[in-house]
Amino acid sequence: MKRKYSVILGNLGNTRDRFCTGYKENPDSFGLLKRAAKIPHVEGIELVGTWDIRPDNAKQMKHTLADLGLKCVSIIPDLFADKRFWKGSYSAPDAKVRRYSLDYTRQMCDIAGDMGCRTMNIWPGQDGYDYLLCADYERAREWFCTAIAKLAREYPKLRFALEYKPKEPRTHSYLARMADTLLMAQETGCTNVGITIDTGHAFVAGEVVGEAIVLAKRAGDRLFHMHFNDNHAAWDDDMIVGTVHSVCFVETLYWLDRCGYNGWLSMDQYPYREDAADAIGESILWLRHFDRLQQKHRKEIDQLIQANDAVATSRFLRKMFAAI
Amino acid sequence: MKRKYSVILGNLGNTRDRFCTGYKENPDSFGLLKRAAKIPHVEGIELVGTWDIRPDNAKQMKHTLADLGLKCVSIIPDLFADKRFWKGSYSAPDAKVRRYSLDYTRQMCDIAGDMGCRTMNIWPGQDGYDYLLCADYERAREWFCTAIAKLAREYPKLRFALEYKPKEPRTHSYLARMADTLLMAQETGCTNVGITIDTGHAFVAGEVVGEAIVLAKRAGDRLFHMHFNDNHAAWDDDMIVGTVHSVCFVETLYWLDRCGYNGWLSMDQYPYREDAADAIGESILWLRHFDRLQQKHRKEIDQLIQANDAVATSRFLRKMFAAI
Amino acid sequence: MKRKYSVILGNLGNTRDRFCTGYKENPDSFGLLKRAAKIPHVEGIELVGTWDIRPDNAKQMKHTLADLGLKCVSIIPDLFADKRFWKGSYSAPDAKVRRYSLDYTRQMCDIAGDMGCRTMNIWPGQDGYDYLLCADYERAREWFCTAIAKLAREYPKLRFALEYKPKEPRTHSYLARMADTLLMAQETGCTNVGITIDTGHAFVAGEVVGEAIVLAKRAGDRLFHMHFNDNHAAWDDDMIVGTVHSVCFVETLYWLDRCGYNGWLSMDQYPYREDAADAIGESILWLRHFDRLQQKHRKEIDQLIQANDAVATSRFLRKMFAAI
Amino acid sequence: MKRKYSVILGNLGNTRDRFCTGYKENPDSFGLLKRAAKIPHVEGIELVGTWDIRPDNAKQMKHTLADLGLKCVSIIPDLFADKRFWKGSYSAPDAKVRRYSLDYTRQMCDIAGDMGCRTMNIWPGQDGYDYLLCADYERAREWFCTAIAKLAREYPKLRFALEYKPKEPRTHSYLARMADTLLMAQETGCTNVGITIDTGHAFVAGEVVGEAIVLAKRAGDRLFHMHFNDNHAAWDDDMIVGTVHSVCFVETLYWLDRCGYNGWLSMDQYPYREDAADAIGESILWLRHFDRLQQKHRKEIDQLIQANDAVATSRFLRKMFAAI
Repeated sequence: MKRKYSVILGNLGNTRDRFCTGYKENPDSFGLLKRAAKIPHVEGIELVGTWDIRPDNAKQMKHTLADLGLKCVSIIPDLFADKRFWKGSYSAPDAKVRRYSLDYTRQMCDIAGDMGCRTMNIWPGQDGYDYLLCADYERAREWFCTAIAKLAREYPKLRFALEYKPKEPRTHSYLARMADTLLMAQETGCTNVGITIDTGHAFVAGEVVGEAIVLAKRAGDRLFHMHFNDNHAAWDDDMIVGTVHSVCFVETLYWLDRCGYNGWLSMDQYPYREDAADAIGESILWLRHFDRLQQKHRKEIDQLIQANDAVATSRFLRKMFAAI
Repeated sequence: MKRKYSVILGNLGNTRDRFCTGYKENPDSFGLLKRAAKIPHVEGIELVGTWDIRPDNAKQMKHTLADLGLKCVSIIPDLFADKRFWKGSYSAPDAKVRRYSLDYTRQMCDIAGDMGCRTMNIWPGQDGYDYLLCADYERAREWFCTAIAKLAREYPKLRFALEYKPKEPRTHSYLARMADTLLMAQETGCTNVGITIDTGHAFVAGEVVGEAIVLAKRAGDRLFHMHFNDNHAAWDDDMIVGTVHSVCFVETLYWLDRCGYNGWLSMDQYPYREDAADAIGESILWLRHFDRLQQKHRKEIDQLIQANDAVATSRFLRKMFAAI
Repeated sequence: MKRKYSVILGNLGNTRDRFCTGYKENPDSFGLLKRAAKIPHVEGIELVGTWDIRPDNAKQMKHTLADLGLKCVSIIPDLFADKRFWKGSYSAPDAKVRRYSLDYTRQMCDIAGDMGCRTMNIWPGQDGYDYLLCADYERAREWFCTAIAKLAREYPKLRFALEYKPKEPRTHSYLARMADTLLMAQETGCTNVGITIDTGHAFVAGEVVGEAIVLAKRAGDRLFHMHFNDNHAAWDDDMIVGTVHSVCFVETLYWLDRCGYNGWLSMDQYPYREDAADAIGESILWLRHFDRLQQKHRKEIDQLIQANDAVATSRFLRKMFAAI
Repeated sequence: MKRKYSVILGNLGNTRDRFCTGYKENPDSFGLLKRAAKIPHVEGIELVGTWDIRPDNAKQMKHTLADLGLKCVSIIPDLFADKRFWKGSYSAPDAKVRRYSLDYTRQMCDIAGDMGCRTMNIWPGQDGYDYLLCADYERAREWFCTAIAKLAREYPKLRFALEYKPKEPRTHSYLARMADTLLMAQETGCTNVGITIDTGHAFVAGEVVGEAIVLAKRAGDRLFHMHFNDNHAAWDDDMIVGTVHSVCFVETLYWLDRCGYNGWLSMDQYPYREDAADAIGESILWLRHFDRLQQKHRKEIDQLIQANDAVATSRFLRKMFAAI
């Protein structure tokens, strides 16, 4: 299956953290697009709502993407940077905010339709809680589920890919891991609600991505989208793929194939102190390297995962990585 | 609702770790029972299969329990200490082991029937994997699910409470967290398959127990059983409740009530270097303390979790804990 | 010993994270000071260099503090928010940046002298590394140590309190934990180089604060300053003291007394979604509560830590917290 | 520098955990030795006191090692499996136990002298604490330090390599990380007190091994010994090197060379479910692979760690690993 690589546009720009307002200069979305277009193998772009795409610039964005030969892979409504959502979006305690979240998402869904984009990547970063005894988990989950179900029914041609993350910016997110997000997706009763795996989020969650992919498969083939990055396993460091881990990316790509994933491989990084285009380009090159390896050795891997023998797997990995 | 406290019998004895074969002397199950009976507020016992309960001693055990005025709360088949299960039980790669797991569990289910015990606490500690690219997650999950569904249908009067834990003894368990275990329970299609929360397992998994309870409620009222202990949040230290955390136990008991839990509160500890009966007794006394607090302040807590105001919650907690 | 409570001024304002530029409005430093002055028990203020205090406003700041009856407890040079320090300050690979770090710190030291402030709180947040094989740990440590030693000798009347933190904003900080920071302090050969413990940083580092205090004591009585906050043990959540943990704060205060600490207890929080003054005030009230408890029960605690009996400690804690 | 590979003898046998008394059959020490001798590249053995080596079998062990052409690399006194040490050895609250720890270690030191073994690998697994407010950290540290200083002076020809580990079997160890162990080593005032790095312990501690090596170098060239294994970064899984991480082992070997380490590379694993000799052999082969890579690319790595450019490092790693 041919892989399709894409990038989240904002990754090329924003390098803010809670201490520093930005380590580098930040061009506007169109400036970022030009950079993105030059990264080898990139064929698609994910646009963050409001930041990159709004009713007032949607046409221009569509034309620019077409000119650059790039597809709009997903729209990511900004449910995380707008301070209106400081206590959540679809599950906000304030009914006005919940309504606004829906209206705003609808606006983004309409743009997606206009752009020929099929996937809404929903990362509800503010939906969660920080302190104990400060949230009604039951009510919040109900509100969230109802909102997603409503959107999914209103926009049956779009796919809603829920991106889970165990924490940050809240100390606890409602969509924290693959399995709880699948429960939510199933609860909506809609087949166009599924999941985005961000590999770094999964590492922080203590998940093995290969296993998470299988869970999504079994729960109704609900893996809709993939975000790639690496980290030191304790926080969402959003680093270049392959600079910390390698075996797990080989395994991830293997299971994507095994489970018939044919979506995009999108890069989601925060190159605070690196050249952004180069850092994202590196991730793609690493993934292509890992992908060649697992494709070449497909049958051996098929056998190894049946054999349950760590020594055999280790021996195989040594030979594979050493290109012997 | 009246709380019912119980204890896992083996907790009073085994103090082995991977370095030391035992820090203390270990009486037999009947000796342990006498100790357990003396712990204030204990009314029930969980028995580990093979260790505590077998076809050859089931009658004697039943009589002894009756004499001591104790109920058999659950039977925990030994799927973790028998080295036959070194690579799993219901999901073992070896078909013979998978069959044996079923047969052995059936034996334990039959005993449960004889004992008037309604709950099988299934902790499949060996079902998981250690290394990447060494397991077929899809096949293993299928085998596991099929086995549980089979048992649940064969024994419709029993409840199968699946106890999740993210790791140990394997580096990754198949039943790792509340949500993936709920997916499994739902997949069996059986209403008598549910969940055991071990509070320490949940902490290691990064879960807030209150939220996990809500997930179980929403997925078909599947919280069947509770194991209590405390830890330093990084490993299953199996410590006395309340010695590290306190707020989260208050919240846990609140949500148990909110979700209508009427099962046992069972203690599951490893008092390696403490007097076992005393250490377990302490946990019960802490829980009773926390329980009194949350019951007394029910309405305030109801309001606080609506209010989403950490300062208000902090102020309340200070007053509550300081008994002002 | 009378406790002295203080607060980092910026805590009352900044609520930025890497996604949102600010959840609340941010008054200027003088506006923040008025709020701080109203928090019960606050007698001192920590000022962040450049943000709160500069050559051009130092006189005004001094007068304002005097008018409000507040002491300047420490100056915290801004080595973390200025993007010049994106790859470190005293250990930056660029010699110009290293020189600038020194010059800038000297400027802040001079102001401290003018303000009658004795403590420089050095948090070198950018000094560290993100990726493997990207830093010369030996050279960086040498540069850092030399710089601190130079400052400590130039300003012998000031105390340089190095604040360690395992990570963030870098994935790895050079001053990561109590012990490595003590090694650095000793290596300077200066008795006016010591340590700031931030309780939250210590939790993330896997430290028990009581033990860290003892390490500082043994390494030449080098505990100079204390920052307080709570978190969920995995990240520097900068939450209200007491909302997650309680026993460890009681123990911390006990060991501060045991080791003769007579410095400030300063609050360091990030009340993103809370009223800042109230959230900081809560931490002080919790600390005062824990402090009363440990002072009242000093002798029992003395005995308990000799007794090495977790059951006895548990029993004591239950009684102490329940105010029986 | 020629690398010397060794193995801890017990690794070939013990496969106990806290649930199962052993997943495999366990031959005696002489049986294990024969297996160890067959692992390619193994030239040395570490013996655990009491288990493998005692006054009654020391001569026989010496001859057997000589016959097999193996060197005794270190003796590891059993301070962890003997239940006398359940609450610590050199820092045990019980004075009798502290005395016994010294006497027992002396016995092992005498045997080391007889065996021509120069290194005592001290892993004080039981020295630490589980619960808060249950230990006098100051007194314990004093006792521990005094004992080590005494031994180091009594046996000036031996080197005492203190092996740190953040936790397990205690929830907190006194020798937890590189830096606190260096403080202890320095405090003894003896140059023959240094450190053993166990790579897995360092990962759990959140350390980057390369940086830990530099710390030991700067604190008086105190890196005496190396134990190798891999893990998933959250627990001491004692897995085959290279099956989770790879970059960090390349970096570790680079810094060993940079800091002039000329000791043994010893394997320390727990192959619960693997063929032990094969699993250990795999680690050696991985290390040799990583070592060849870093030696071949020494100059490039020298430049990369000066350059502080993650993209350049990533590009290098891709090329190096892909053997292009």
